[in-house]
Order: sequence, then C-alpha cells, then structure tokens
Amino acid sequence: MGEKIPRVALIGIGLIGSSIARGVRHWGLADEIAVQSRRAETVATAERFGLGDRYTTRAAEAVDGADLVILSIPVGAYGAVAQEIAPALKPGAIVSDVGSVKVSAIRQVEPWLPDGVHFVPAHPVAGTEHSGPEAGFTELFIGRWCILTPHAEVDRTAVARMRALWEGLGAQVDEMPADHHDMVLAITSHVPHLIAYNIVGTAAHLEHVTQSEVMKFAAGGFRDFTRIAASDPTMWRDVFLHNREAVLEMLGRFTEDLTALQRAIRWGEGDMLFDLFTRTRAIRRGIIEAGQETEAPDFGRPHIVEPSLETGSPDGAERNPGP
Amino acid sequence: MGEKIPRVALIGIGLIGSSIARGVRHWGLADEIAVQSRRAETVATAERFGLGDRYTTRAAEAVDGADLVILSIPVGAYGAVAQEIAPALKPGAIVSDVGSVKVSAIRQVEPWLPDGVHFVPAHPVAGTEHSGPEAGFTELFIGRWCILTPHAEVDRTAVARMRALWEGLGAQVDEMPADHHDMVLAITSHVPHLIAYNIVGTAAHLEHVTQSEVMKFAAGGFRDFTRIAASDPTMWRDVFLHNREAVLEMLGRFTEDLTALQRAIRWGEGDMLFDLFTRTRAIRRGIIEAGQETEAPDFGRPHIVEPSLETGSPDGAERNPGP
Repeated sequence: MGEKIPRVALIGIGLIGSSIARGVRHWGLADEIAVQSRRAETVATAERFGLGDRYTTRAAEAVDGADLVILSIPVGAYGAVAQEIAPALKPGAIVSDVGSVKVSAIRQVEPWLPDGVHFVPAHPVAGTEHSGPEAGFTELFIGRWCILTPHAEVDRTAVARMRALWEGLGAQVDEMPADHHDMVLAITSHVPHLIAYNIVGTAAHLEHVTQSEVMKFAAGGFRDFTRIAASDPTMWRDVFLHNREAVLEMLGRFTEDLTALQRAIRWGEGDMLFDLFTRTRAIRRGIIEAGQETEAPDFGRPHIVEPSLETGSPDGAERNPGP
Repeated sequence: MGEKIPRVALIGIGLIGSSIARGVRHWGLADEIAVQSRRAETVATAERFGLGDRYTTRAAEAVDGADLVILSIPVGAYGAVAQEIAPALKPGAIVSDVGSVKVSAIRQVEPWLPDGVHFVPAHPVAGTEHSGPEAGFTELFIGRWCILTPHAEVDRTAVARMRALWEGLGAQVDEMPADHHDMVLAITSHVPHLIAYNIVGTAAHLEHVTQSEVMKFAAGGFRDFTRIAASDPTMWRDVFLHNREAVLEMLGRFTEDLTALQRAIRWGEGDMLFDLFTRTRAIRRGIIEAGQETEAPDFGRPHIVEPSLETGSPDGAERNPGP
C-alpha cells in the first residue's frame, strides 16, 4: 500500500472528504489528518465525529506542513482556494482533489502552485445522494474506480503515492488524460444527473397530475431518478458550469436519440422500440460483471412483510427477494 | 380482507402473475389457483415453483369455472386473449388485469366480454427489473399502490372484491378514471423508462467513449438508469404503443424543460441550475415520507469491506452506511 503519509490536509469535509478521513484513519494511511471547512458548524461536526487530529476554518492553516493536500470542495471554488493555500504549501507537497471535472480543475489550480509542488488531479467515481461530514463512511470507495488525470510531466513518484493512497482506501485506480475523463464522465455521470434533475422538475409542474400523485405512484420508476436528483446542488451546478462543452455534446446525442424514439412511438414502430429495449439489458449485465453494481433486484431495496400481514408461513418475513 | 375466492385463473405467470400467485397462496386468498402461460416452458417453471393447483398453456381452459381471471400479460396481447377466453368465462366472473395502460386495456377487453361478466381493470404500481415466474416474490406489493380504473357503471361488488384482493396482497388501493391513470403513469413511470432506455442506448454508441469505459465508471450515476433499462422489452414496447398520446405529451414537457436547462448551461446561468437542483430534493423527501422509497443512502446498495482490506477495526465490515 506504499509508505504512510506523515500529514494529510483535507480541504472540505463533506461526503467525500469525510469518507477519505474515515478510510485514512481506518486503514492507517497517514499519521496526522488536518480537517478544514469554511463553515465553523461543519468543522464542529467533523470534530464531533473525530474525523481528524487538527481542525480549522482556514485553508492556509490546514495545509501548513502537510505532505498531501486534498481538495474536496465544489469545483467552482478551486481557483480561489488554490490562490489562498499556495503560499502556505510545503515544498515537495502533493496537491490533489476529488472533483468530477478535471480540465477545469487543472486550469484553476496549476497556475497558483509554486515550483516543486505536484498537482495530481483525482476523481473517485463514488458517492451517495447524501451530503456533509455525517454522510461519509469508510467503505464508500471500496471496489469503485478512482481516475487520476496528471499532466504527462507530473512527477511519477507523486502519481504513485496518490495511486497507493486510493488503493489503500479500497479503490481501483485508472489514469487517463483530463479531457478524456471529462468526456467519459459527461455521459456516465453528468448527463444522467441532468436528466434526473430535469424529470423531477418536470413532474413537479404539471397541471393535470398533482405532486401528491407523483409521490404516491413513484414506485413505477420515477423514484429511481429522485435519488440522483437529491445530490448536492452546489456541487452539481459547478459540474455543469465547468464541464460545459462535454456535457452539451453528450446532451446533444441524448436528445437526438430521444427524438428518434419519440418518432417511433408516434408512428407505432414497435420493432425499433423492442430492439433498443433488448440491447440495453446487456449493458447492465456488463456493469454487474464489472463489479460496479449489485445483482440484487430493485438495487436490493428492502421488501418487508408488515407484521399485520404476517399470517402465513414466516419464510417471507423481512428479507430481500432472491436474485 | 373479504371473502375467499373459490377459483382464480392467472393468465400469464411472469414477475407480476407469479407474485400474485405467491401472495394469494401465502395469505390464503383463494381456494384454487389455475396458472396459464402460452409457453410450455414457463408453465413447467411455474409448476416447479408450485405456484398453482392446475396448469395449462390454453387460456380458455384456465378460465373455465374461474370466479376471478387476472391478465398478467403484455398489453398488446389483451384483445386476442379476451376474444379467446370470452366464450369460456363463467357468468358473474370478474375479469381484471395488471397492465400499466388502462384506456387501451378497456378498449381491447370490454367489447369481447359477455353480459354479466365484470371488468375491473387494475394496475399494481410495483415491480423489479427481473422477468419470469422465478422473479416473483410474495412481498412485491406490500405498501405499494394498486390503482383500479373501472367504468362508473361497473358492479360495485366486483370492484369491492378486487379492492379486498389487493389489500389482501398488502397493497394500498386507489381508484381513478382510466384516462387520468394513463396521464399519471406517463410521467411517473413511462417517460422515466423511456429516458432510461434512451440514455443507455446513447452511451452504447459513442465514438470517443468505449462501452468498457461506460461500464467501468457507471457508479457516477449511469448505473441507476440501467436497472430500469433492463425491464421486460415486450411489456414496455406495448406500453409505449398503447399509451402514445399521454407519453408524447409528457415527453414534450420533459424535452421543453431539458432545452431550458441546456440553454442555462450554455450561457452559464448558475442560479437557474442551483434553484432547480435545490427544489428537486423536496420531492424525494415526499416520496420517502409517503412510504414509497427507502431512506437508506444509495437505495441501501451493499457497501462491503473486502476481507483483504479488513485490517483495522471490524466495525466497518459488511454493513450499509447509516442513514
């Protein structure tokens, strides 16, 4: 797992930052963890959970003497924070991040960093719809991918250290150019979030269907989208503003295909619908085989027998359906 | 729970039909269950699972002497099956179904039914992405809604019997006009399925992003959509062909809103994005409070510590994160 890091500074301590803190502690990946958030209330929560060894609301103070600095903040704040911490960075330190957009991350951070400080951008492809230091958990990154997008000229020892850290947290590590990352994530994450937010918004503003009906009958499919549409608004606003070109390109593909489906429905072209609906099953199978999804039906959501109904044999009580 | 039904005939024994069979047996809602599927292989599977008392591939044989007949087949097959079973229906029998489209169900079935047979269309809003008699389970309908859409002139005793059956299976029962049902389900189920199928199709046909990359990095959001896009292709083809008007109307709303979002991204209108992303959280909260969704993060997907990583304290092992 590589050598232990003397001091890690976590700038931002939300879902991702606090999961890193828990994992670093759990697997003993660093000697000391400095925790920072701009909000005193968040710092207090982090302290209550014992996520670090030192706590501060000032980023420059947190990075002082740190061998590794990880930004776990919305992408829109990178430039200002990089400017703020730059003078306090230790020579030879590694700066990294966890953001969902990488070209913009590099563009915002690199100009501020002094010579001899290594920027190794990282993106752990993991998360839940919950936010804040209380939402993190040790196991979040296990089996998930973490993508590193360093420039070709970045020091390979620094890259190797980041790889070791993420493997230590349970992740699989991949490396690719930042612009390719932004294109891959536009289709696997950003556009899915956009259309989830969008349909939830559409459903909330209809004349002939009430919000109460939308909520009651959400189990027909809609509720799956609401999970993603409950993700952190600031983080996602920044993702769309900072990965504009790739998102607009992938969104263009999506709407082009959707228009073709719409036309097939209008003209009753059942074969086209059936063909698409058959092909899409293989993709899910591939994701399950790649270890990136559970095989349990309905995501393994609990299907529970209420005690009042439990009049027959007890074998159906409080269990998930078998696969 | 109402009086026990002497004989139920299940026409079609897939995910929904077989879950009804299991529930009827488990809670003792009928004396005898006749099971039918057109495919001999499916009938054999149903028999292996012990889902009924009598088995046949012939629908007319299954409904002979039945007090209640439930169609659990793709909506596109309703007309032909109604024609086939009509001469064999017992006077006073109730015919019902479980289809996701109700105006078309009525239009296809009613003309064939003899006087004195009562058609009470029903739609349990429940399911998983799996299909076939082996995919069903007793608890599927518990806490979910079942919508009845009988004409105003349908015998109220027949409607009450269907209400009692679904309550006996653990569902909550609602009643509304068929055309309103089709509009509500278009936005809560049909359009969500269409856009899920669509984005999975889009992701499978890109030049700059490989299918392998789409699968590896699916945990960023995409994988949520693949569950819905793994649903039964025949069933969903028929839903779109038979609820065309409502689906096209709701799809029009969706694309209108998406175009506005696209424009906001292009012009950097962060406030508009942030406002939408904030409002959508309330809808999920409402669905959880309505008992139609789990509160557990990430749908309660398992986050498991691999044994090879389990070097620290054991408290993180094989558990879901707390809420």
